[in-house]
Amino acid sequence: MVTKVLHHSDVALWVQQYGVEKCIKEVMDRLKLDYGRWSEFKRTPRQALYFPHGVIESMPISDDEWYACKLVNGHPDNPSKGLLSIYALGALLSVETGRVHLLSEMTLLTAIRTAAMSALFASLCKIKKPIKLGVIGAGAQSEFQLLGLDQVLTIDRVMVYDVDPKTVGKLTRNLGFKPWPIESLSQVEPLVESCDVIVTSTAIKQRVDVLGSASLRSDQVVIALGGDCPGKTELDVMRLIGARIVVPCIKQAGVEGEIQQLRGENDNVKEIHECLDGSWLHSSDTLRIFDSVGYALEDYAVLRWMNDHHAEASSEPFHPELDDPKNLFASIRKASE
Amino acid sequence: MVTKVLHHSDVALWVQQYGVEKCIKEVMDRLKLDYGRWSEFKRTPRQALYFPHGVIESMPISDDEWYACKLVNGHPDNPSKGLLSIYALGALLSVETGRVHLLSEMTLLTAIRTAAMSALFASLCKIKKPIKLGVIGAGAQSEFQLLGLDQVLTIDRVMVYDVDPKTVGKLTRNLGFKPWPIESLSQVEPLVESCDVIVTSTAIKQRVDVLGSASLRSDQVVIALGGDCPGKTELDVMRLIGARIVVPCIKQAGVEGEIQQLRGENDNVKEIHECLDGSWLHSSDTLRIFDSVGYALEDYAVLRWMNDHHAEASSEPFHPELDDPKNLFASIRKASE
Repeated sequence: MVTKVLHHSDVALWVQQYGVEKCIKEVMDRLKLDYGRWSEFKRTPRQALYFPHGVIESMPISDDEWYACKLVNGHPDNPSKGLLSIYALGALLSVETGRVHLLSEMTLLTAIRTAAMSALFASLCKIKKPIKLGVIGAGAQSEFQLLGLDQVLTIDRVMVYDVDPKTVGKLTRNLGFKPWPIESLSQVEPLVESCDVIVTSTAIKQRVDVLGSASLRSDQVVIALGGDCPGKTELDVMRLIGARIVVPCIKQAGVEGEIQQLRGENDNVKEIHECLDGSWLHSSDTLRIFDSVGYALEDYAVLRWMNDHHAEASSEPFHPELDDPKNLFASIRKASE
Repeated sequence: MVTKVLHHSDVALWVQQYGVEKCIKEVMDRLKLDYGRWSEFKRTPRQALYFPHGVIESMPISDDEWYACKLVNGHPDNPSKGLLSIYALGALLSVETGRVHLLSEMTLLTAIRTAAMSALFASLCKIKKPIKLGVIGAGAQSEFQLLGLDQVLTIDRVMVYDVDPKTVGKLTRNLGFKPWPIESLSQVEPLVESCDVIVTSTAIKQRVDVLGSASLRSDQVVIALGGDCPGKTELDVMRLIGARIVVPCIKQAGVEGEIQQLRGENDNVKEIHECLDGSWLHSSDTLRIFDSVGYALEDYAVLRWMNDHHAEASSEPFHPELDDPKNLFASIRKASE
C-alpha cells in the first residue's frame, strides 16, 4: 500500500490541470451524497485550542470505512505578516487497518469544499431567474465562491465590496475569463439593497454586522462564511430573527456560527442534511441564510474525493512496511541497507 | 519556511545513523523537562473513535509556542494480516502562525518515546543494584524498552516470555550486540518470581492478568504498557491495591489505563510530573507500578526533539507560499508556470 503525500504544489497543479470548476462540481456532488447519509457517520465535537494569535482545531470524523481528520488554524492577523489566515492539513485513514492512505495539505481543498457547500445550499434554494450576486470580502475564498455559485445560479452581474479595494482588483483579474461583469463598490449598502444572493466572507474577529445600514428583504439569500469561532459573527442577531437558517451541524454552529447569537431551540434553524430535498428552502417569501461553519464531514468528503482521484498515484511508503510486523526494530537496520 | 515531511524510511534512516540509544536518552531528557513544566500546557482529552477492528485517536496538546497532534490507531488483529498493531502520524504546528513545521510518520517515534518514558520512570525509582529484568510480550516495542531501561539500570540478565516463542528469538537476535544474557522462558511465573523490574507489553484486547499465578513482592517494579483503552488491562485489580502507581495523566489513565479498574480518588496514584524529584518513588518497600498510558505530551516532546534535529533540513514547501496572502486563487495558475 502506498500513502499519497500531497504538498500544496501537488494539489494546486492537479486542480489546475483537472479544472477548478470541475473540482468544485464534483465535490458538491460528494457533499450531497455524504450529507445524505448523515446517520452513518461517527461524529465528535471539533477540539479547539485558543491562543492570543488565533485558534488551532482538530476535526475528526469517520464512517465504517474511512476516518478523516483535519488540522486547521485561524489567525486573523497572519495577512499582515504576508501569511494566509487559514492553513490546513488533512489525513484519511483506513478504518480497517488504521493506516493513512492520503495525507494532504488542505488550504486549497478547504476553499474548494467551502465553495462546494455554498453551491449545494444555493442549489437547494432553487433560484431560477438570473440574479445579481453580491460578495462582501474579496479575500482568499472569494473567487472559489463565485465559481461554485456560477454552477448552480444564472449570474447576471457581480457586485463586490471590500474595505481594501485592492483585493477587488485581484478578484476581477483572477476571474477575467468569466462572462459576467464585476462591479467594485465603495459602499456596502447598494450591494445589499440590489443583490439577490449575498456572500459574506470577512475575517474580523469580533461580533460585527458587515451589511452596514441596509435592510435585508424576504426574497434574498445570504451565505455567511465568516462566523467560525466563538465571538466572531458577521450578521447582527436581529437579521437572524424570522429567517430560515441552515447550518451543517447545529451543535457546532451553536458555538461557532452566526446562530451562537440565538439562545435555545429554534424552529427556524435546520441542519443541511434535513434540507436536501429542497422543500424547506424552496421558498422565496422568507429570507434564507446559510450559516456555513465548516464541518468535519466536508473535509471527509473532499479527502475521499482526492484519494479516489489519486488511487493510482505511486509514492514512497509512509508507514513502515515490515516482513514481520512484530519486528519494528529491524527497520532501523534496514534503513541503512 | 519549509515543512519537514518525514516518511518512516526517513525517520528510520536518521535514527539508525544517530543511534537509537542516543535517541531514547535525548527524548528521556526532553520528557523530564516537559513534564516538569506541566502547567504550561493546554491539555484536552484525546478523542477516540471505536470500530469493530480497533480504535483511531486524535491527541492534540500545546504550549504557548508549539501545537502537536498525533493520530494513532490500535488494531490488535493487524499482525495476523502482516500489519503492525499501531501506526502513527504526527504534526507540529507553530502557535504563532498556525503553520505545520514538521509532519512525520511516528510509528518508530512512538516506540522511542514510550521507551524513554519507561526509562524516565525507572530512573526515578533510583534502583542502584544490578537487576534481573523481565519482559512479558516480545512484540514491536520490546527491544526499545530494553535499550531504554539499559541506560538507567544496571542489567544483570534479561528474562523474556511471550506466548509466541518466535518473537523471543527475534528480540534475542536484534539485541545480540548487548552484553546481557537473554533467557527465553516457556512459563511466565518464574520470570515474575525472580525479576526485580518487569515490563508488560501485550496486545490482548480484554481485561487479563499477564503475570499468571505468581505473586508480586513489595520490592519489585512493574512497567505496564498494555493498558491503553477501555476494557484492555494487563494486571488484575488486586495487584494494584496498596501499590504506588504512577500515570502520565490521571484523567486519561482512569479511562484507558490499568487504573480504569480502580474507582474514585486514590491516594496511591500520582501523575508523573508530581514524582520528578523521585522522593515518592524512591522506596523499595512498596510495589511500584508505572501505568504507562501514552499521553499527548510525550508526542509533543518527541516531535519537538525531531524538529530541532531537522531544523536545517530543506524540503519542498508544504503550505502555500503566496506573494499576496489574499490571492490563494493565483496558486492554481502558478502551479502550471
